[in-house]
Amino acid sequence: MIVNGSHYRTIWLEGSSVFMIDQNTLPFEFRIHEAKTCSETCDAIRTMITRGAGAIGAAAGFAMAQAYLESEGNSKYVDEAKIGIESTRPTAHNLFYAVEKVYEAGKTSAEMAVKEAQRLADENVTDAESIAGYGNELIKNGSRILTHCNAGWLGFVDWGSALAPVYKAHREGKNIFVYADETRPRSQGARLTAWELVNEGVPHSVVPDNTGAYLMSKGMIDLIIVGADRIAANGDTANKIGTFEKAIVAREFGIPFYIAAPFSTIDFAIADGSLIPIEERSQEEVLYSTGPDEHGVIHRIRTAAFDTSALNPAFDVTPAKYVTAFITEKGIIKPDTADLLRFATNR
Amino acid sequence: MIVNGSHYRTIWLEGSSVFMIDQNTLPFEFRIHEAKTCSETCDAIRTMITRGAGAIGAAAGFAMAQAYLESEGNSKYVDEAKIGIESTRPTAHNLFYAVEKVYEAGKTSAEMAVKEAQRLADENVTDAESIAGYGNELIKNGSRILTHCNAGWLGFVDWGSALAPVYKAHREGKNIFVYADETRPRSQGARLTAWELVNEGVPHSVVPDNTGAYLMSKGMIDLIIVGADRIAANGDTANKIGTFEKAIVAREFGIPFYIAAPFSTIDFAIADGSLIPIEERSQEEVLYSTGPDEHGVIHRIRTAAFDTSALNPAFDVTPAKYVTAFITEKGIIKPDTADLLRFATNR
Repeated sequence: MIVNGSHYRTIWLEGSSVFMIDQNTLPFEFRIHEAKTCSETCDAIRTMITRGAGAIGAAAGFAMAQAYLESEGNSKYVDEAKIGIESTRPTAHNLFYAVEKVYEAGKTSAEMAVKEAQRLADENVTDAESIAGYGNELIKNGSRILTHCNAGWLGFVDWGSALAPVYKAHREGKNIFVYADETRPRSQGARLTAWELVNEGVPHSVVPDNTGAYLMSKGMIDLIIVGADRIAANGDTANKIGTFEKAIVAREFGIPFYIAAPFSTIDFAIADGSLIPIEERSQEEVLYSTGPDEHGVIHRIRTAAFDTSALNPAFDVTPAKYVTAFITEKGIIKPDTADLLRFATNR
Repeated sequence: MIVNGSHYRTIWLEGSSVFMIDQNTLPFEFRIHEAKTCSETCDAIRTMITRGAGAIGAAAGFAMAQAYLESEGNSKYVDEAKIGIESTRPTAHNLFYAVEKVYEAGKTSAEMAVKEAQRLADENVTDAESIAGYGNELIKNGSRILTHCNAGWLGFVDWGSALAPVYKAHREGKNIFVYADETRPRSQGARLTAWELVNEGVPHSVVPDNTGAYLMSKGMIDLIIVGADRIAANGDTANKIGTFEKAIVAREFGIPFYIAAPFSTIDFAIADGSLIPIEERSQEEVLYSTGPDEHGVIHRIRTAAFDTSALNPAFDVTPAKYVTAFITEKGIIKPDTADLLRFATNR
């Protein structure tokens, strides 16, 4: 991705430090955060300095490599670090996928762990590019696309999942328009997706999450593309809270509902979505908002009544029957176990 | 409603001034706003110092009475004022209903206009009390109720529509729990409904609008009650943006979806919902938020990326087929023209 004229990845490893675009200060300040240790990288995942299924996966792989670098051959240290990384965010499967891969590679040497983590980050980029290619075929000239949360550059190492086809279509000169769900409570749509779309010059509007049925009933949406945090073997998909609601409404109006994600998001060990753990986050995310005033001074303000409380489930699970198809690095796949397994093993 | 130990109506006329609870400074500051002239009352409606179908109706009636008091018998002044009041908020039918009634009464004398406006405000309260009674019969001990936006005390002169049955059930000692949709972009749920529920001591949680399908799929919601801004003759209902989406999701899960509203909300001149004008509000409401920091200082902050834009339709129209029933001052009514007309004329 290009920011201020330079190409950036969302997250990368240099020496023993993990560097990442700080997604908490965005979109108001572009800052690179350095996590010098495995523990600091875990903190960055937990506090969402880095976030999004793909970026979390890369961060977790790097953190596992950092643990090996720090361990000086102490396997107990590595094993404890692994548990620590896995406890940062419970829903994203890419995290567990990357940690497992790097953990295995590190059994040979810390160097191999680093190599594997780097390979996974590179793979994340090439997967996203393939998703861009396949997804682009679904986007016509004139298409109006609704997306939820941020599954763009920032949610991956580069390109993104849901937004990768959008960028590809736009760069090819297709005339497209994106409706970006604000995505409360953390507003990743209004803050991160909109920031990306502004940078990339893609025509778009931020819309309150409440507008879905309105837009769809008025024929203003041609297709919906969202990302995924974990996909069960049967195609049930955990993604940002609100995704399920959009999927139900899309089916009501016969609008195609696509989930874009690399195979590393699929958890074949989980038969269906009921077994995917859903992270509950702090109610403060619902009751407070942060941003700059007219002078650029950042404030954290209360946006709800005093003495009230809030519920904040971070994800929901969309049953496979609401999904038109998955857009993966291996192609467009129907949402059933047989098709997912066939693509996973044969290609 | 009781605030700080005193009983308040949301809005009232005293002499030639309209007094109203300032709903823009709530929930952080309880302030009474005085609108001395018809024009000031129009401003208060437009800027949403007073808001909610019932309160807008009362305000519009009072504004029409103010116009007569100001007119000194000049009918051109009154007619122009009428047009001005009607242009403040295009969707709420109660506004047009009240303006028409007071306009007719004022043809006799300004005194009669004032009397009619007062009568309408009183009727607003008795209607809400009846709605409370009928709606209460739908609420069981242990019921978990989802509501959207604010159709409580503050949306009416007293009691409310959607929340009136909730207050009645709670005061009768039923063990109930309310999930209050935050209701972006203006967050009337998090700010106003939560404030009311805190004052009334009703157990509740604020939830992001995105959680609807999650809560319903997990069996956490027994029934949904919302208000209405305008109901067409066939039962299609304009209400706060996001209502339609909840209705679709509720039907998917077989959860009863009730609309609570007095008959003054029904526009028999409009055959179906496609003819209800939908107000588009400023995109600033989506891109900025206002509230106090930890020291109580109020700030207006930007919550979206710079250089992006937003779409802000204020209402959507839920087709009658998604509505389980209307809770009105005349009883529980099925959502079809025949039943609505029968109740309107026979009882």
